[in-house]
Amino acid sequence: MEYDRDNVFAKILRGELPCHKVYETDRALAFMDIMPRGDGHVLVIPKAQARNILDVAPDDLADLAKAVQVVAKAAKEAFAADGLTIQQFNESAGGQVVFHLHVHIIPRFDGVPLKPHTGDMEKPEKLAAFAEKLRAALR
Amino acid sequence: MEYDRDNVFAKILRGELPCHKVYETDRALAFMDIMPRGDGHVLVIPKAQARNILDVAPDDLADLAKAVQVVAKAAKEAFAADGLTIQQFNESAGGQVVFHLHVHIIPRFDGVPLKPHTGDMEKPEKLAAFAEKLRAALR
Repeated sequence: MEYDRDNVFAKILRGELPCHKVYETDRALAFMDIMPRGDGHVLVIPKAQARNILDVAPDDLADLAKAVQVVAKAAKEAFAADGLTIQQFNESAGGQVVFHLHVHIIPRFDGVPLKPHTGDMEKPEKLAAFAEKLRAALR
Repeated sequence: MEYDRDNVFAKILRGELPCHKVYETDRALAFMDIMPRGDGHVLVIPKAQARNILDVAPDDLADLAKAVQVVAKAAKEAFAADGLTIQQFNESAGGQVVFHLHVHIIPRFDGVPLKPHTGDMEKPEKLAAFAEKLRAALR
């Protein structure tokens, strides 16, 4: 499948859409999921154009994995999480909605189930506060 | 948290427990999940001792990501899947049951939901058949 240059994350990477940014390197960007399945739900994406795991260059995927680890460790600390659920969806049947490779990191807390994926947007001020906590842990 | 050398996947790596192996390199091993959430559900683990994403060495994680991609692409082809759901759980609150880092690759088909995680074991002959299909695609 071809990469769609007009997907929402491509627009975020080009600065055409805003995001609650928490981490950036020359190869990766992390920002808050605006439809979180739990408090502190953050996404990590490569700057390289890739639709998903099926077409990403192996070295770009390896770089992404390292960025995911950095953000995951910070998220566990920032939110005093008991665990982390990490997910990555490929094609619509696999759960993918935005067609730029992305990894979900969801802080988890004992006894708190994942929220269903309703499509409801989180309040911007709440996302901003989570982003600030995460940025502080990443400093 | 410390690495438990007696976890089930450590025993599989040492050859003390069997598995339906599909792929092996000097750094990674892939085998069928015996409690699959869908047909062709396969696990990829590093040979390095790591509890989860919180303690794995970054280079070991990067190597694992590359192995996951190889197996994911083969799984999509072998099972003619419409998509793939990839999951990685950290600590009990995050969904982790076996405390050796592992990545779930679940082939997905349009209109077929993930099976719940019941703890029911799949029939060995069915797992063997899935493993053979996947090995063929990896050749």
